[in-house]
Amino acid sequence: MEGEERMQGSRDAEEFGPVFTLTAGPSGSTQTTSLAMGQAVAYDYDPSFLALYRDVVGYLGEAFGSAEPPVILHGEAVLGLEAAAASLISDTDVVLNLVSGVYGKGFGFWARRYAAEVVELEVPFDSAVDAEEVGALLAQRPDITIVAGVHCETPSGTINDLGAIGPIVHNHGALFLVDAVSSFGGMPTDFLAWQVDMAVVGPQKCLGGPPGLSLVYVTEAAWDHMAANTAAPRSSILSILDWRDAHLVDRRFPFTPSVSEIYALEAILRQYLNEGPSRVHARHRQAARATRAGVQALGFELWAKTPAICSDTVTALKIPKGVDEAALRERVRRESGVMLSGGQGELIGKVLRIGHMGPAAYPMAPVLSVTGLGRALRSFGHSVDIGGAVEAVIGELDKE
Amino acid sequence: MEGEERMQGSRDAEEFGPVFTLTAGPSGSTQTTSLAMGQAVAYDYDPSFLALYRDVVGYLGEAFGSAEPPVILHGEAVLGLEAAAASLISDTDVVLNLVSGVYGKGFGFWARRYAAEVVELEVPFDSAVDAEEVGALLAQRPDITIVAGVHCETPSGTINDLGAIGPIVHNHGALFLVDAVSSFGGMPTDFLAWQVDMAVVGPQKCLGGPPGLSLVYVTEAAWDHMAANTAAPRSSILSILDWRDAHLVDRRFPFTPSVSEIYALEAILRQYLNEGPSRVHARHRQAARATRAGVQALGFELWAKTPAICSDTVTALKIPKGVDEAALRERVRRESGVMLSGGQGELIGKVLRIGHMGPAAYPMAPVLSVTGLGRALRSFGHSVDIGGAVEAVIGELDKE
Amino acid sequence: MEGEERMQGSRDAEEFGPVFTLTAGPSGSTQTTSLAMGQAVAYDYDPSFLALYRDVVGYLGEAFGSAEPPVILHGEAVLGLEAAAASLISDTDVVLNLVSGVYGKGFGFWARRYAAEVVELEVPFDSAVDAEEVGALLAQRPDITIVAGVHCETPSGTINDLGAIGPIVHNHGALFLVDAVSSFGGMPTDFLAWQVDMAVVGPQKCLGGPPGLSLVYVTEAAWDHMAANTAAPRSSILSILDWRDAHLVDRRFPFTPSVSEIYALEAILRQYLNEGPSRVHARHRQAARATRAGVQALGFELWAKTPAICSDTVTALKIPKGVDEAALRERVRRESGVMLSGGQGELIGKVLRIGHMGPAAYPMAPVLSVTGLGRALRSFGHSVDIGGAVEAVIGELDKE
Amino acid sequence: MEGEERMQGSRDAEEFGPVFTLTAGPSGSTQTTSLAMGQAVAYDYDPSFLALYRDVVGYLGEAFGSAEPPVILHGEAVLGLEAAAASLISDTDVVLNLVSGVYGKGFGFWARRYAAEVVELEVPFDSAVDAEEVGALLAQRPDITIVAGVHCETPSGTINDLGAIGPIVHNHGALFLVDAVSSFGGMPTDFLAWQVDMAVVGPQKCLGGPPGLSLVYVTEAAWDHMAANTAAPRSSILSILDWRDAHLVDRRFPFTPSVSEIYALEAILRQYLNEGPSRVHARHRQAARATRAGVQALGFELWAKTPAICSDTVTALKIPKGVDEAALRERVRRESGVMLSGGQGELIGKVLRIGHMGPAAYPMAPVLSVTGLGRALRSFGHSVDIGGAVEAVIGELDKE
Repeated sequence: MEGEERMQGSRDAEEFGPVFTLTAGPSGSTQTTSLAMGQAVAYDYDPSFLALYRDVVGYLGEAFGSAEPPVILHGEAVLGLEAAAASLISDTDVVLNLVSGVYGKGFGFWARRYAAEVVELEVPFDSAVDAEEVGALLAQRPDITIVAGVHCETPSGTINDLGAIGPIVHNHGALFLVDAVSSFGGMPTDFLAWQVDMAVVGPQKCLGGPPGLSLVYVTEAAWDHMAANTAAPRSSILSILDWRDAHLVDRRFPFTPSVSEIYALEAILRQYLNEGPSRVHARHRQAARATRAGVQALGFELWAKTPAICSDTVTALKIPKGVDEAALRERVRRESGVMLSGGQGELIGKVLRIGHMGPAAYPMAPVLSVTGLGRALRSFGHSVDIGGAVEAVIGELDKE
Repeated sequence: MEGEERMQGSRDAEEFGPVFTLTAGPSGSTQTTSLAMGQAVAYDYDPSFLALYRDVVGYLGEAFGSAEPPVILHGEAVLGLEAAAASLISDTDVVLNLVSGVYGKGFGFWARRYAAEVVELEVPFDSAVDAEEVGALLAQRPDITIVAGVHCETPSGTINDLGAIGPIVHNHGALFLVDAVSSFGGMPTDFLAWQVDMAVVGPQKCLGGPPGLSLVYVTEAAWDHMAANTAAPRSSILSILDWRDAHLVDRRFPFTPSVSEIYALEAILRQYLNEGPSRVHARHRQAARATRAGVQALGFELWAKTPAICSDTVTALKIPKGVDEAALRERVRRESGVMLSGGQGELIGKVLRIGHMGPAAYPMAPVLSVTGLGRALRSFGHSVDIGGAVEAVIGELDKE
Repeated sequence: MEGEERMQGSRDAEEFGPVFTLTAGPSGSTQTTSLAMGQAVAYDYDPSFLALYRDVVGYLGEAFGSAEPPVILHGEAVLGLEAAAASLISDTDVVLNLVSGVYGKGFGFWARRYAAEVVELEVPFDSAVDAEEVGALLAQRPDITIVAGVHCETPSGTINDLGAIGPIVHNHGALFLVDAVSSFGGMPTDFLAWQVDMAVVGPQKCLGGPPGLSLVYVTEAAWDHMAANTAAPRSSILSILDWRDAHLVDRRFPFTPSVSEIYALEAILRQYLNEGPSRVHARHRQAARATRAGVQALGFELWAKTPAICSDTVTALKIPKGVDEAALRERVRRESGVMLSGGQGELIGKVLRIGHMGPAAYPMAPVLSVTGLGRALRSFGHSVDIGGAVEAVIGELDKE
Repeated sequence: MEGEERMQGSRDAEEFGPVFTLTAGPSGSTQTTSLAMGQAVAYDYDPSFLALYRDVVGYLGEAFGSAEPPVILHGEAVLGLEAAAASLISDTDVVLNLVSGVYGKGFGFWARRYAAEVVELEVPFDSAVDAEEVGALLAQRPDITIVAGVHCETPSGTINDLGAIGPIVHNHGALFLVDAVSSFGGMPTDFLAWQVDMAVVGPQKCLGGPPGLSLVYVTEAAWDHMAANTAAPRSSILSILDWRDAHLVDRRFPFTPSVSEIYALEAILRQYLNEGPSRVHARHRQAARATRAGVQALGFELWAKTPAICSDTVTALKIPKGVDEAALRERVRRESGVMLSGGQGELIGKVLRIGHMGPAAYPMAPVLSVTGLGRALRSFGHSVDIGGAVEAVIGELDKE
């Protein structure tokens, strides 16, 4: 069957119209980012690619606000988190794992693989970890050497106040390992002021890149701890140590980096730095507030127990009894071309999530998500005030 | 420093002209592939992406000649190899590792992490493993349960005759695990006839895609063996089991797949199947023969001990005494825009490699590599007959 | 100042967020179309480009519903209209020019350059030409040889019923020359049934391509008339005759065709034919009805005197006294990222236009235009019911 | 036949491998240029497009070395030439048309349409116009008001010394109208020093853009002359006057500009200015010399009578008796993926042309053209020394 044709375009014919990706990530991409990925695949040791890689590491350090060169791992952000657990945590470490959602919970499983002991401070998944409780627990357990926390719990749309927790951890003398995957780039994340020792970030959330890389902020203290861990992965995709300073001239890559993902990373970091972090954060905040006002006007309750802990990057709604979350979301997509996210882990079926991160944090995005959701609810026979919800959205937008 | 501009285009200014990527991989990309990557990043659960993912798994099965759905892992091909070792090999397995080069040697390190014992059959890195010796060794060691082999040793430009070895392994009752990363798509790799149980392939070699995925051929026997391995990774980037049937409707991805890499994979598989494997293999063979003729006419010796074991996908040359391989290669790139590969592992400085794989397997590629190499040699004061070398290339091209 | 850098990206920094192009055309482009333009510029006599050109002419004929090969002129649609006037109309022709808007009026100027006499049947620009009046006028003037009419008057958002007029023209024995630039591809335009002899279309309206080509439907009768016109342009960009059958093998192009525009044309025609004209027309109709309902609920009056003559492709609104149209439109763009069109010719300042053509004819487009317009009105101190307007839009959308 | 699929990719299957476009133009495009065209089509009055248009006019002025804003016409370069004739030449003008090739000859036809009289100074098409003869003729004809000349005669690969001719024309008091389509950007063209009054350039030659625009250099004297010409086109695609200052804020475009062509123009001008004209010219010169050396070593004679008049942008070869030019060129394309140009006008069948302009002016281009040509000759039974020809190419390349 040599030369038989495979058709392209079959997907074109099935549906028409733009898809508005308003999800918990991947969050779409700007045209600049997409076209950056359209560049020919370079050989990884081509001098132009090596120069680009060095530029990218520099931009990332600038975005992190770090003088230390950060590390890029060549797999989606869960690689960064698993690698951080594997590299940082040894069997002499006692880990305090702060749990306020699915991701925090999940990190505990990885931590237990490597730690002497994992202590968990868990709060309900609609709440946030309290800094004072962290302090109290640390006071009880002076043997804790590493504290792990999640900044934005993407499945819950909630934020932990790491700026309050970090200094407590630091004063305790423990290392602070942070999952900032879905907050970095959409909200202030001042790793330096927060005294974070290691943080993992992904390009596919607030930066608007493709999934496929982990971006790791590492301090000298964290490097030292990993270097001292004789069980830290080496010659493995899980190795962070192998990739230290891989961007330097005359160093070799431990394995072939994901060339096209690096093209995208360069593009998204340049856009982020050119737009300016404070402006980027402001439009996330605006989109978040407008989204929350709109969905509440539609009659939804927010999943988060209090407004204060709502993330500026993603909003989780409670699905009322009698509503099939998956069917609702599918209808929004089909009728209105708006793609939303469902629940994750134990929240499947219970929450629906609207992303307003990265390229989706623009003023009209909440109009689209709220209208699409309203239309779908109505088509399932629910009586909703879509006009009122759009007015609520606009009310928030026009405050700024 | 909000809003400060980062300049793009600084690289544009430094050099002009096309870069001819004639390397051991990544091997460049066709325009069709590059533009496929230029599509907007979709949400991974968007229905259009789910449909694309299913198409891709179907195309990959077709390319593998397999009725079993293959598995895509979301990291460069070394992930597939490490994951295969971690998943397939348990502490009840005795592994025979066939070593004829850097990659075979490297696999032994991974195998030792997991196996009860690793037996190695090693030949010099300019040679190939002999099927009869494999048979003899297996006869001596009936306890061997897994045999691991490399089809194309990319660093050496050599091929092992897996078609002869596979049936011997199968008759012994062991599983046959194959690294076909740099041969698949450029040479016949009949996993079914060769009785391979598991094979790992990468998109960035003969298929002409970006690095960033591992493509894994798995038979039922291999699935059973992995399922029985209680230490096989789960909830890990190293897990193959987690990704089994991830393409099926109503299944969830273990973590976010690399969306844009999947775009490229769809494009390269469609191009490969449309062109037709036998035609693709023929142009690799033609480019390989022409390259070998040309470099020998320039005065180089092939690294491979005998012509019979030379790969159709990459050619390794011996670097003569007194020639600085890195400087030579850099000169070729700078003077002629031709990017070649150096040695790897213990062959660094000893060999230079010319890729003729994927998008680089076209008739004029050997003219470019040979001319570029000749010019650089001459500029370092070596006397070479470039005209004669080009004539040697053309002589081979015009045979077909 | 050799090598000094020009910055790219300065525009990136100034604004963020998608731009929703809801204009009278250019109407944006789908991703498929944009990426088609991203292909390398081919030599116009490259065999692959010649094959593509032939394909495109075939697709265009199919879209026109014509067995005759159509003609592509290499300049924006006004070239096609001017060239049609110059080629078809000689000093022996008496032309009846049907005028119901700015474009019809404008055509009269061109017709007068070439014709023996131009008779004009003009109606107010918010109305449509009446077929019976055309018949009556033709009865009075048996010497009329050419009738020129505009299907969709883009500046007015109105339609003339050419299906009623065409047969009258044909029975009179005159040639019927039609401007279908902004209706073709968005509404039924059955040139054959309407007995049109020549029609000019542009890619940048309902087909969603870039401006830069004129697509000309020509019947044998029109070819004969042009051939008989000794003053018809030759060796000129205005020549239609020069380009007849330029797509045939072994013919030469009169001058270099616009290679990248042809890439886009191939892509948009393939998308149009794959989606299917009747489905394409249905979504234009839906978007048009929803837009009209929405803007009326915002308090605007439609420019068109009666709903029956409103175009499915563009809606023109009357600007109320005291509203600065340009400032309003600028505000919509800046606040909401929604780009609308102003008036043209004598309608500047009097009308504002919302396009719902080509890639802009999707269900959520009217939500965006109406909301954006409402927000801007409110920000200028006007009291408007945006929620009610969105409900009106949804009411129309959900009828289908 | 709604929804029936049109296949894409049929062309992919027919051939494989890069196409090396080494033609007289369109000359291919860099990746940066291609991706610039992949941007979504903007509305022409979108503020971001208006800003881009102003940038482009600025870059073009800079490239022209002109303080006067240049004019962009929205059709391929022949539009610019025809429009220049139509706009500048009135029936009170006596034109001296300098003819040394097909394009100069062709311009005479246009000039005769508009001029009171056209005087022609014609030399054989393998020669150049002599400045002294121009002076002598002007002395005889004080009534000559416009002199028209071609810088590079693309069909002949020859150059006229406009730097010598321009001041003579100026001293005579005539306007100097120049066709610099295929030299601008590849060779020094100092319009100011040469005292050129108006020049027409195309993006698809030495700048490496798509065909579809005319770039017009206009001095105040030329504007005055056009303004005084009451027959100069207005409300026509042939109007230059209509487009004067169309880039200024609050001006309207006479008709829709070719949006995507402007994207490309911005990209190519930025690349040209960033690389630096003198560096760009140097690589054209190098490629030209190497090409000429190579084809002469293959046994071809250059079409140009003397080396001094050979263009740095394109080389024309004499086709020996008994060689079928079209068949030879087709063979080069099919065998080697190298696209060359044939003859034009009366030179069809007599010359074959190799472009080394824009993106094709790189060191290895002559290796590709000469090798491809050599292989094709040999396949037709001619005995040629390809190795020697490649050595001749390299000899020239390595001089610099």
